[in-house]
Amino acid sequence: MPVNVGIIGFGTVGSGTAEVLIKNKELISKKIGDEIIIKKIADLDIETDRGVPIDKNILTKDANEIIDDPDIKIVVELIGGTTKAKEFILAAMEKGKHVVTANKALLAEYGKEIYEAAKKYGVGIGFEAAVAGGIPIIGALKEGLSANRIHTVFGILNGTSNYILTKMKEKGLPYKDVVDEAVRLGIAEDPPTLDVDGTDAAHKLAIIVSLISGYPIDYKEIYKEGITHITPDDIRFADEFGYVIKLLAIAKQKEDHIEARVHPTMIPKENMLANVNEVFNAIYVEGDFVGPNLYYGLGAGRRPTGSAVAADIINLARHIINGEKGVIPPLGFSKEEKSSLAIQPIEELKSRYYFRVSAVDRPGVLSLISGILGKYKISIESVIQKGRKKREDDSVPIVMLTHEALEKDVRKAISEIDMLDVVKDKTVVIRVINE
Amino acid sequence: MPVNVGIIGFGTVGSGTAEVLIKNKELISKKIGDEIIIKKIADLDIETDRGVPIDKNILTKDANEIIDDPDIKIVVELIGGTTKAKEFILAAMEKGKHVVTANKALLAEYGKEIYEAAKKYGVGIGFEAAVAGGIPIIGALKEGLSANRIHTVFGILNGTSNYILTKMKEKGLPYKDVVDEAVRLGIAEDPPTLDVDGTDAAHKLAIIVSLISGYPIDYKEIYKEGITHITPDDIRFADEFGYVIKLLAIAKQKEDHIEARVHPTMIPKENMLANVNEVFNAIYVEGDFVGPNLYYGLGAGRRPTGSAVAADIINLARHIINGEKGVIPPLGFSKEEKSSLAIQPIEELKSRYYFRVSAVDRPGVLSLISGILGKYKISIESVIQKGRKKREDDSVPIVMLTHEALEKDVRKAISEIDMLDVVKDKTVVIRVINE
Repeated sequence: MPVNVGIIGFGTVGSGTAEVLIKNKELISKKIGDEIIIKKIADLDIETDRGVPIDKNILTKDANEIIDDPDIKIVVELIGGTTKAKEFILAAMEKGKHVVTANKALLAEYGKEIYEAAKKYGVGIGFEAAVAGGIPIIGALKEGLSANRIHTVFGILNGTSNYILTKMKEKGLPYKDVVDEAVRLGIAEDPPTLDVDGTDAAHKLAIIVSLISGYPIDYKEIYKEGITHITPDDIRFADEFGYVIKLLAIAKQKEDHIEARVHPTMIPKENMLANVNEVFNAIYVEGDFVGPNLYYGLGAGRRPTGSAVAADIINLARHIINGEKGVIPPLGFSKEEKSSLAIQPIEELKSRYYFRVSAVDRPGVLSLISGILGKYKISIESVIQKGRKKREDDSVPIVMLTHEALEKDVRKAISEIDMLDVVKDKTVVIRVINE
Repeated sequence: MPVNVGIIGFGTVGSGTAEVLIKNKELISKKIGDEIIIKKIADLDIETDRGVPIDKNILTKDANEIIDDPDIKIVVELIGGTTKAKEFILAAMEKGKHVVTANKALLAEYGKEIYEAAKKYGVGIGFEAAVAGGIPIIGALKEGLSANRIHTVFGILNGTSNYILTKMKEKGLPYKDVVDEAVRLGIAEDPPTLDVDGTDAAHKLAIIVSLISGYPIDYKEIYKEGITHITPDDIRFADEFGYVIKLLAIAKQKEDHIEARVHPTMIPKENMLANVNEVFNAIYVEGDFVGPNLYYGLGAGRRPTGSAVAADIINLARHIINGEKGVIPPLGFSKEEKSSLAIQPIEELKSRYYFRVSAVDRPGVLSLISGILGKYKISIESVIQKGRKKREDDSVPIVMLTHEALEKDVRKAISEIDMLDVVKDKTVVIRVINE
């Protein structure tokens, strides 16, 4: 018997999903042994042509027509946002329907509630499209690497930020110019706040951390820092030191706590992540048995995201066709953790650091700065202080890489340095990894 | 109720599998909601200590003790080879047991028979470990990318060959010296015939082609060529042209046929596969919706392969615990293709080519060679003919890159060229990709 699907939200991802299900209908039927039929699509706008060959009669403005339809077995939520979307998903689950969603914000914020509802009503929830678009990283973490304790994840999870950093590097242009161009080209939203301030990557990291730990964590616990303060100077200095600057989402699972943070990071040029450019996403995963793994692809866009949503639909349709009850639990853990997971406060982080101090070019300045660093046990690995041309405020950049130091010491030291008379601007601090 | 597993073959992969199931027992139980118990391990050698904490009483020399045990629900075949292994797998399936195997040679040669048996007896067969070790590429193709028509696959699927090519490039050493060292270090078998002649990669490619097409193809139909004729000269010339030489497994799915071939290939330095070094594996996959995807990790070794075998065991154990009947069909296709898949003969290939002709350094030689190429409609894109020191046979290398040409024309042209008096050695031909 064909499997009926209802799609709520006929925007970019919704139309990509409909397109792949229609265009590859024959292939998909061969795979699962029966048809997947899009029975209804709900959207407030049922007039605009999305370029997908559907019967206009399946369009409705009322999402409840999908949720209340007893013939629809899989409800696909693609409207985004956290209010209506949550309402629809919970209502669909209550009616025993499986759910597929691409809504990272919703899962990052209300994952716990939604995963519990899925378990309560015995339905599956697919969210492959919520992290890194077309890259099947959710499947890899839930199934392919399921025997491993995953101790490290480094992800380039936001395509817009990666595009901006790539172009800043290639063209030597300041952040603002590149963003303006990206907005013009339709690559970035106007303004691209949640992309460039690290929120979107933190949403995705929250989902990844939940999957590798079994604890549905709240993304607000994740430290985040965006890319808006990165300058072409920093990118150039990084290059001189042998590094590339990327917005990384980092998770490290330790014995009794987990590190989870999103921030611009200097990574060695030889690292494969350093070569992930433009709007591409990539996730580096290290497990105790599998060792290092890397996954690379397009993290957004109508077709790649549609591919991921459709994979979840196919997966659930197979279960339905086989008349199966059990589905893999939302996070892949049948017994979930009861206690909460301790996320390390950023102040406790040990890392190497890059500092760019804007200081007056005068004898004794470097010794003043390094004196403060020494007081906080921050030891310098290398310094670049070249005869560069002065800026309007009379300052020159003093650039340093440190050995491993404690974040809270760094914060104290930098705030002291920034109060010096000879320092003319806020010091730029970028964390450095050597892996 | 705990799920009992029997492992046949306690070698490298067998002990890696046992190790991960034991070491991560608690984590795995949390995931699937019950225990996985290794009830028996069969091997001819039950004396040698594998460094895995197991009860000696579970060891047996008789694989049938596993196959005949009604309490064992999953049989794991890790002995390799294609005779006994096939016998054991078919016998286990007949008894209604699910099977997990890492045996690429077996699936490449007898896949059709084994997949049919799995369907006949309604059991699952997991073979994540058969291709690219720890990289969950089988899961990605069967599930994560299931909505896509996969049209292109480029794989670095043999770690030994990749190690050899990496070291030849790094150290400028000839093939033989590097192989000797690799054997000494235990990285390569002695002799590493099936690794370096392309057979192992062809086995894996056969499995990939079966998965993306739904036709269980015979690996013997795959054209293969090894790396033994590659010299440091070729690697250096490739570098001058902006390329790196890798042993690539290539599949291209067209409307009415498929290309499937394994050979040394020159790939542009900027291509991510060009930066996959040492014993690492990587698979580049392009689907009609997902676009480009890359998967990278360790393709062999006790722990990564054990991780993949264990993932399959966990997956099947979930089905058993949930009391489910249906499993995803072996190749992910519920309706398999009846007709056979047309694999393009290598003679019909259109490609760009690299030639290294060993010719006497005399006026008119280049014109002689290019005359022959012209006759076969092979047009030259660039030539390197530098004042290099002559070899013992008085020859110098003439190196050329061509525009796209037809393989059968190339073969004819090269055999004419090699018959010229001025040509002192067999011309080296390497296919070039520009993607």
